[in-house]
Amino acid sequence: MSAVVDRLATLAQLGSHENGIDRALATVQERAAREQFAAWARERGYALAQDTVGNLFARRSGLREGARCVLVGSHLDTVPTGGAFDGAYGVVGALCALEALDARSIGTEHPVEAVAWAGEEGARFPLGCLGSSVFTGAYEERHALALRDASGTSLGEALASAETGLLEGVPMREDARLAAYLELHVEQGPVLEREGIALGIVTAIAGQRRYRVTVDGSSGHAGTVPMARRGDALMSAAEIVLAVERAALVAGETVVTVGTFAVEPNAPNVIPGRATFSVDVRAADDARIDAVEGALRTSTSDVTERRRVTASVERLESRAPAPMDPKLRAAVARAIASIGERAIDVPSGAGHDAMCLSRVAPAAMIFVPSIGGRSHVAQEETAPRDLELGVEALVASIVEVDKFVI
Amino acid sequence: MSAVVDRLATLAQLGSHENGIDRALATVQERAAREQFAAWARERGYALAQDTVGNLFARRSGLREGARCVLVGSHLDTVPTGGAFDGAYGVVGALCALEALDARSIGTEHPVEAVAWAGEEGARFPLGCLGSSVFTGAYEERHALALRDASGTSLGEALASAETGLLEGVPMREDARLAAYLELHVEQGPVLEREGIALGIVTAIAGQRRYRVTVDGSSGHAGTVPMARRGDALMSAAEIVLAVERAALVAGETVVTVGTFAVEPNAPNVIPGRATFSVDVRAADDARIDAVEGALRTSTSDVTERRRVTASVERLESRAPAPMDPKLRAAVARAIASIGERAIDVPSGAGHDAMCLSRVAPAAMIFVPSIGGRSHVAQEETAPRDLELGVEALVASIVEVDKFVI
Repeated sequence: MSAVVDRLATLAQLGSHENGIDRALATVQERAAREQFAAWARERGYALAQDTVGNLFARRSGLREGARCVLVGSHLDTVPTGGAFDGAYGVVGALCALEALDARSIGTEHPVEAVAWAGEEGARFPLGCLGSSVFTGAYEERHALALRDASGTSLGEALASAETGLLEGVPMREDARLAAYLELHVEQGPVLEREGIALGIVTAIAGQRRYRVTVDGSSGHAGTVPMARRGDALMSAAEIVLAVERAALVAGETVVTVGTFAVEPNAPNVIPGRATFSVDVRAADDARIDAVEGALRTSTSDVTERRRVTASVERLESRAPAPMDPKLRAAVARAIASIGERAIDVPSGAGHDAMCLSRVAPAAMIFVPSIGGRSHVAQEETAPRDLELGVEALVASIVEVDKFVI
Repeated sequence: MSAVVDRLATLAQLGSHENGIDRALATVQERAAREQFAAWARERGYALAQDTVGNLFARRSGLREGARCVLVGSHLDTVPTGGAFDGAYGVVGALCALEALDARSIGTEHPVEAVAWAGEEGARFPLGCLGSSVFTGAYEERHALALRDASGTSLGEALASAETGLLEGVPMREDARLAAYLELHVEQGPVLEREGIALGIVTAIAGQRRYRVTVDGSSGHAGTVPMARRGDALMSAAEIVLAVERAALVAGETVVTVGTFAVEPNAPNVIPGRATFSVDVRAADDARIDAVEGALRTSTSDVTERRRVTASVERLESRAPAPMDPKLRAAVARAIASIGERAIDVPSGAGHDAMCLSRVAPAAMIFVPSIGGRSHVAQEETAPRDLELGVEALVASIVEVDKFVI
């Protein structure tokens, strides 16, 4: 078994339960994954460093004095019923890439660091990409440490604990100057598998907006209120969700999801007086997201005029699209061609740490296929040969990127 | 305060709680309501009788030896958060009508009985119109007594208890021969109020069919699965519910309600893999219900062809429409005209004991307005003068019906 497959199997034991893997930031299980990462790095003599929110770095020195580092990595935490590949693959893949450079006696001008970002999933503390947000200055460290989980424990408290906290004997990271950022990740969608291609070069990480929509009508007896007199919140909501779906299809390269939906009072013989649902829109450019938001607002206002209901659209979150760096993407493409492999451009609908890194350095991502497009489930899987190919693509990309970045 | 208003206020104390009135069959509260009915009947010297499932009768004798009885009444039980008028009005109104005949020294050929049917709401034991179903032979007595509530208590056990059971000292009813059945009830809908008319003569009690629809698609990541590759259970369900709504509007005089609706896994960033919802269709004739059921099945099959989902439609219940007796309706119309009042024909979308009685005897119903159309809620209300007018209409109807029924 190759090192990448073997190590992913080792990490998959940490936090494993009957419905998947639960390895939330600053838990015993997640700390064990950081310890494992550190153990692998120490075996190879890479210099370890961490920071105050739990990001962990393993550094392979560069040849040129004072060169900025090329950062390569992903995250070790999971959603509560996560799989073995999301995040972990990019971390293990980065370490394996460093080792491949050693094994092939390839020196790089820049130091190359494998990084395990803390708390990308936002599963425990209410902030996605927590570690990379703090690292890049998008979110203040003191605010991050003050975030509390559902039981009231703050991140600062959890990271101060010997069982769940920062690693002993690992110094704080000092060098923050970046040359570039590379992230290897499973696609979490069906595109590569459908195209029969093992490698994808991410064009952009989609922007995302999330909304909560509430429609208030009039509850009433299912048998006695004529159709023309109803203010049926469910029927109104059904029109709105189909309108946003149509808008996403018209916009193209846009996805919209109504993932939660509830009616009140939710009784078979009572007309729903209230319907509440979520809307999640993602696209690689804001114009497409704007178009769907426009349709959401128009259709909502339309039903309030026709259907004896009132409605509100609340925007909960807005994340701008993060295009990957064109020169870095080209370098990755050259690298993949240099090893005789094919790759296609793909967008990333899911968020990644590369989103934050792209704000402060050139960033690129490489995707490998997810079997059946499955993600955030125990059944998440990528074929071993695709995992290995992804690492080879990453090694070649590091070499190529090292040639031209400052 | 008139007797009908006063007595409804008395009954409203029984089972009263902060969110309405809870007076389920064979509870302490419901038995207290039967005791109150019996006490009022005894005061006036009416002969009381009950049967094994808790139906309770108060008889005012007729002039003609051996004449069949005219039965007049409704039910004393409520839904868990019921109001003061649904059912109780028809029982109290029947007693008040008997007293009015006494007060005006009006003799009738037929005996007239005020009846309180047991368990019309089906709120505790899983059978609506329980008492009238057993009385009319639509449901076997032994099966009714074997029905169990959510805690496992059978109706037979509850009716055998001194605290919740049959009344002491009240004999079993013997005479089951009916001349006609009349029921006075609140409309539970908005039609009379909207028309500005205080009295409605029910044309038919709507037929009703209930379905459970399940749509199974594919769950997936909200960001990574392109729209064209989705099997979105919610979007499919939204199409179906709008199709049945359209079908009901096209059919006319038909109501359709999707009262319950749920998606799984119900997370904002996950495409719903399953949607489950109820469909309740009611109309005064089967052809209209057939049309809506047809649209339900067609639209369901249509989405399974277009949307990468499967779907099932399960029919849970089917109740045939119950037309009221034309001659009895005409008699009620004459009676209302004779007291100088106006009435309009209205359908009943809700079920009533008259539905069962109409299978074994000529039956008719009189409606009075529900303020705001509210029903099955604490705020259910009917204006006192409408309550009094309904009783007057009932008195006149009894006199008119007495003239021609066998």
